Amino acid sequence: MKKLNWGMIGGGESSQIGPAHRLGAQADGNFVLAAGALDVNAEKGRAYAQSLGVAVDRAYANWQEMLEGERAREDRVDLVTVATPNSTHFEITKAFLEAGFNVLCEKPMTMTVEEGEEIVRVAEASGTICAVNYCYSAYPMVREMRQMVKTGQIGKVRLVVANFSHGHHGDASDADNPRVRWRYDPAMAGVSGQFADCGIHALHMAGFIAGDEVRSLSADFASTIPSRTLEDDAMVNFRMEGGTVGRLWTSSVAIGRQHGFDIQVFGETGGMRWSSEQPNQVFYTPVGGRTQIIEKGESGLSDEAARLSRVAIAHPEGFPLAVANIYVDLAAAIRGETRDALPSATDGLRSMAAVYAAVESAKADGTWVDARPPMLR
Amino acid sequence: MKKLNWGMIGGGESSQIGPAHRLGAQADGNFVLAAGALDVNAEKGRAYAQSLGVAVDRAYANWQEMLEGERAREDRVDLVTVATPNSTHFEITKAFLEAGFNVLCEKPMTMTVEEGEEIVRVAEASGTICAVNYCYSAYPMVREMRQMVKTGQIGKVRLVVANFSHGHHGDASDADNPRVRWRYDPAMAGVSGQFADCGIHALHMAGFIAGDEVRSLSADFASTIPSRTLEDDAMVNFRMEGGTVGRLWTSSVAIGRQHGFDIQVFGETGGMRWSSEQPNQVFYTPVGGRTQIIEKGESGLSDEAARLSRVAIAHPEGFPLAVANIYVDLAAAIRGETRDALPSATDGLRSMAAVYAAVESAKADGTWVDARPPMLR
Amino acid sequence: MKKLNWGMIGGGESSQIGPAHRLGAQADGNFVLAAGALDVNAEKGRAYAQSLGVAVDRAYANWQEMLEGERAREDRVDLVTVATPNSTHFEITKAFLEAGFNVLCEKPMTMTVEEGEEIVRVAEASGTICAVNYCYSAYPMVREMRQMVKTGQIGKVRLVVANFSHGHHGDASDADNPRVRWRYDPAMAGVSGQFADCGIHALHMAGFIAGDEVRSLSADFASTIPSRTLEDDAMVNFRMEGGTVGRLWTSSVAIGRQHGFDIQVFGETGGMRWSSEQPNQVFYTPVGGRTQIIEKGESGLSDEAARLSRVAIAHPEGFPLAVANIYVDLAAAIRGETRDALPSATDGLRSMAAVYAAVESAKADGTWVDARPPMLR
Amino acid sequence: MKKLNWGMIGGGESSQIGPAHRLGAQADGNFVLAAGALDVNAEKGRAYAQSLGVAVDRAYANWQEMLEGERAREDRVDLVTVATPNSTHFEITKAFLEAGFNVLCEKPMTMTVEEGEEIVRVAEASGTICAVNYCYSAYPMVREMRQMVKTGQIGKVRLVVANFSHGHHGDASDADNPRVRWRYDPAMAGVSGQFADCGIHALHMAGFIAGDEVRSLSADFASTIPSRTLEDDAMVNFRMEGGTVGRLWTSSVAIGRQHGFDIQVFGETGGMRWSSEQPNQVFYTPVGGRTQIIEKGESGLSDEAARLSRVAIAHPEGFPLAVANIYVDLAAAIRGETRDALPSATDGLRSMAAVYAAVESAKADGTWVDARPPMLR
Repeated sequence: MKKLNWGMIGGGESSQIGPAHRLGAQADGNFVLAAGALDVNAEKGRAYAQSLGVAVDRAYANWQEMLEGERAREDRVDLVTVATPNSTHFEITKAFLEAGFNVLCEKPMTMTVEEGEEIVRVAEASGTICAVNYCYSAYPMVREMRQMVKTGQIGKVRLVVANFSHGHHGDASDADNPRVRWRYDPAMAGVSGQFADCGIHALHMAGFIAGDEVRSLSADFASTIPSRTLEDDAMVNFRMEGGTVGRLWTSSVAIGRQHGFDIQVFGETGGMRWSSEQPNQVFYTPVGGRTQIIEKGESGLSDEAARLSRVAIAHPEGFPLAVANIYVDLAAAIRGETRDALPSATDGLRSMAAVYAAVESAKADGTWVDARPPMLR
Repeated sequence: MKKLNWGMIGGGESSQIGPAHRLGAQADGNFVLAAGALDVNAEKGRAYAQSLGVAVDRAYANWQEMLEGERAREDRVDLVTVATPNSTHFEITKAFLEAGFNVLCEKPMTMTVEEGEEIVRVAEASGTICAVNYCYSAYPMVREMRQMVKTGQIGKVRLVVANFSHGHHGDASDADNPRVRWRYDPAMAGVSGQFADCGIHALHMAGFIAGDEVRSLSADFASTIPSRTLEDDAMVNFRMEGGTVGRLWTSSVAIGRQHGFDIQVFGETGGMRWSSEQPNQVFYTPVGGRTQIIEKGESGLSDEAARLSRVAIAHPEGFPLAVANIYVDLAAAIRGETRDALPSATDGLRSMAAVYAAVESAKADGTWVDARPPMLR
Repeated sequence: MKKLNWGMIGGGESSQIGPAHRLGAQADGNFVLAAGALDVNAEKGRAYAQSLGVAVDRAYANWQEMLEGERAREDRVDLVTVATPNSTHFEITKAFLEAGFNVLCEKPMTMTVEEGEEIVRVAEASGTICAVNYCYSAYPMVREMRQMVKTGQIGKVRLVVANFSHGHHGDASDADNPRVRWRYDPAMAGVSGQFADCGIHALHMAGFIAGDEVRSLSADFASTIPSRTLEDDAMVNFRMEGGTVGRLWTSSVAIGRQHGFDIQVFGETGGMRWSSEQPNQVFYTPVGGRTQIIEKGESGLSDEAARLSRVAIAHPEGFPLAVANIYVDLAAAIRGETRDALPSATDGLRSMAAVYAAVESAKADGTWVDARPPMLR
Repeated sequence: MKKLNWGMIGGGESSQIGPAHRLGAQADGNFVLAAGALDVNAEKGRAYAQSLGVAVDRAYANWQEMLEGERAREDRVDLVTVATPNSTHFEITKAFLEAGFNVLCEKPMTMTVEEGEEIVRVAEASGTICAVNYCYSAYPMVREMRQMVKTGQIGKVRLVVANFSHGHHGDASDADNPRVRWRYDPAMAGVSGQFADCGIHALHMAGFIAGDEVRSLSADFASTIPSRTLEDDAMVNFRMEGGTVGRLWTSSVAIGRQHGFDIQVFGETGGMRWSSEQPNQVFYTPVGGRTQIIEKGESGLSDEAARLSRVAIAHPEGFPLAVANIYVDLAAAIRGETRDALPSATDGLRSMAAVYAAVESAKADGTWVDARPPMLR
């Protein structure tokens, strides 16, 4: 099968997220890095792109040049990944969508709900693919859970309990470290800290697995390190459209939790749980029965899980290959197959609406707030 | 050392809790069952008491006779355990305290806050011991956590996250089973279901370990099985007097969780977690360091933990011996030693105030409510 | 039900094992401590016995006096526990059996195979109960595994893999500590160190669960701390009468393992595993199926497991109550019920034969040796 | 950095191992697939190679043509991976080494010890890199353990206990399945079944971490499914050159174990353990201290571990990226850096010698046998 041409904006030499995208796009041989505007420093970006094998004329100085350059080519890139600082996602994504490119945007897709609605409209109008990198949803066993709900294996979902808590910002003496501080500074991070940064992954996954959407929520935010303006710990209660009750705890001061993203889903006839630190198993319990361990790679899994696993049962696959699974699905979608589990612009919009709703609720002492974007009410 | 005389009210032949108390009181040889009014059916109760070795004249028909009989004796019981239906705890406990007996009362100590305040006053006036059976707090490793906070090993406590969730009431087709139904029926259970039944253990433990008390709370209750009047799932956010943030989730529809009582405590310089299903370890992480596994029975533990462990490191001890530890401390306290970790009438009162506060908050869509009993504000 | 009279030999004030036996015998209300010869120091032993509630005339100076005293009484003890130093077990056990007493002997039952055969003969001739304290076999979930094999749930057993490894003797600088040193000194410990001390529990359990007996074995012993004469690490391969393959590793220098006694049993149609550090679960996998977690206290367990559990599902029970389960079964057996899972004198004899066989094999570079006692070949 | 040219022999469309190598070689952007002879069916192989982007003139019909074709080119491949059926590894590897190519050979490197010695000689004479794919040794945390031993963090290694056990061949009714049967048939698998297939990974890792080599061993083999000629379960005791005691259990009938490759290493001053199903942590216990959890990605790890991890702490990385790490090190070595942790032809030779020694020992009832290849004695 012919490789697809891939372009990246951001993800330069000092970027943390760049390597994950490059591995994700290239690991399975679907994409080849054909173009890039990798760095705010044009020279650095162009040199780095060439070191990664990009031809000199496609190693662009900035995203605007890349947009112009690529739209003019017959062999224009099939997919653009936007991995720039958060505040620029909206503008770049919108421009590429309007020019007819498929886009994978890092989260958050935008900084406001209005921008999110704009992206949804533009993506729809352009007929292109606009995906958002909620990569945890591409773990095979998360897909399996989604299919289990869809096929009724736990009955109607009553309750979802999701956590995304770590302790890596728990050291007050390190709180001024620039790599930490910006996340709690509204000037740089926007209206929310930990909830927007990590909690939103968990909220997306709740809807993703339950096959439902958040309707309303109530939030309790805390800045447990007093120098912080934005929250470093949050609890969000929510209700889904179908009545499912939700509980979501997220924290960055939970010292000892390393990457505590885990989810429990409880229905009328069964329950299940999954943890991102041991992502290759689901613990499933039918009501009145014993807990069973479902293994990635076991026979009888759904196609959604089976096709996203590369090695035999109990050979673990991890985070970088979950990112790669997003690219696997993008390649299939670009080639014309249906991939409705791919996180979309609508998902990015819903997240932003939830962030603003949570901020509003937290400021109003936990008042329940509509969490839906206006255009989807 | 001379054995102490022990009396039990309730805990008859069909009781589930009776055996745990008998094992708890007798396992370490501190108490001998000397008197009892074990059953609402007087004949059954008297016969069963005698089968357990109680002398015929101390196998009473009811608690009133026992009160009269024992107060008249020189060798009156040193301790009375009240293990009757919830709604009778107040009356019986009060009567025995007033007569100068030491009492261990099953939880809930009372059905209202006013009754709770009355018990606190009576206990104080009588100069006797009034303990409430928050038995989880007597696990050696829970005591160790409390000592670790007290001695500053995790710094000021920022955050406590406690869960007590199980799935044993998750089968809607079993919801009319009388052993399940009463818990969600206000006529029998009072104002709260799952929160009062299980959540309150977790709330007590949060204060117990943190060395602080709940000041205010906000609650979200749900009856995920619609036939239920009272909640089967609850989330409670709270703040402690010293500013600590609290999160407490409790559920009885979390299918697959068996006995999911666990707690995480995060401070300025470290975090720790403990789980009731693996109660002999604490996972402790100093800020910036590696997670360490602290084992019951290891050298260097606090005296509070060390004296409540009976066998060598990694030989597990379980729930019945946590109950036994309550009796170990009661025996010591009766013999005149200080045992300030024993859950007291004040703890029972605070629990009741928190239950009423949570109910009030849940009815008012999560409004924050003062959770302190009036007499302790 | 009338309590049974119980006597103890050894288990004095400084004994580590004494408290476990007292808790075990008394926790469930079956036995009352009626007589004792608790210490080599007669005065100390008599005083301590009285402090535990033994009448002055049954607080004996030594086991010989106790034998004389008790055999003369109408209310003689129903059971004698022998918890003295290893080298005295044979003589005391034999004497009490010959006098018609039921005996629970600590392991090892004897120091030689010949003595073991003598005990078996005497026990048979006397018609009394002679049990050996392989207490791990009385965990409810170990009983469940035995029943699962018996009822064919894993088919014919192909393979048993058992470990009993800890690291508490791994510090060479502590090797001369008297509490450690004697175990590796043939003058005190006999022919074997770690294998006789811990490994033998695992070997017993292998036969107990498989429902079979060891026929031959090959051993590799090592003294990894050179100052030791006896082995501190051993591997024993074996074959059972029915052809089952066995692998047993035991170590006392496995630093980081706390109480690593665990067993895996693999049959034609399933496998299962159990660990003494988490004794309330069995992990069971039917061939071709998912691993299931079987919980102590779940519905549908065998009577052997169900009647030895005291509290609800997922309320852990631990080591002291496994010892108590031995006493539960002893009480039932004394009262005339059948309790064929009780470890018997024959089990004690087989252990001793296996120890001698392993020593012989290890000295002969792993030559396969008949592991059966001569009288059972 | 310029990409390296990579060629693959075997690993065609139906191969299970091919995708792992392609992902491994390409994930980090070091290699580009430039040439291949991917299938015994020449047409299929050529077509498949082209579908993967190989130029038509480098999509070879067989390895002989590839050898001729590549040696004639200036841009000849920098590395050849040999992933053909086991019995062909020797011939192909030898031919490419002699022609001056760097080779990564799948295990087993050869079918006999003599062939292994020949490869070692040829590799040495040619001055090329000859690596063998013991990919588990490239997990970051396995490298960390090796470094911990090297830097004395657990003192002199006393004992290594390694297991590689699974249950995927435990179904006798599936034993004639061709994908299973060949492994136990000497005509296809050679002298050993499960030990050569899986056990040898564990034996390699024992030496790799301990920094020592096996000197002698004693083996017990069993065919627990009677239709099998070769062993499906094996226990191997061994001694290393420096005196370290070794225990290795491997099985393919351990129903319920999925991928039970784990290792424990015990030294004079500490112990540690690692499991392939949770490969991102090491549990480390200093003598007399608490067990600590070392996380991939934590600060302060050795360079060997740090440079082989791609994402932040507690973001799991799995098996395919361990294979990729072999290629990371190969790329570095080809570019002239020192990578002495790369498994070499000597490692492949030692493995073969150990396999033959184990077979000889097992046939001789466990007699101890020299496990070293003649040329290394």
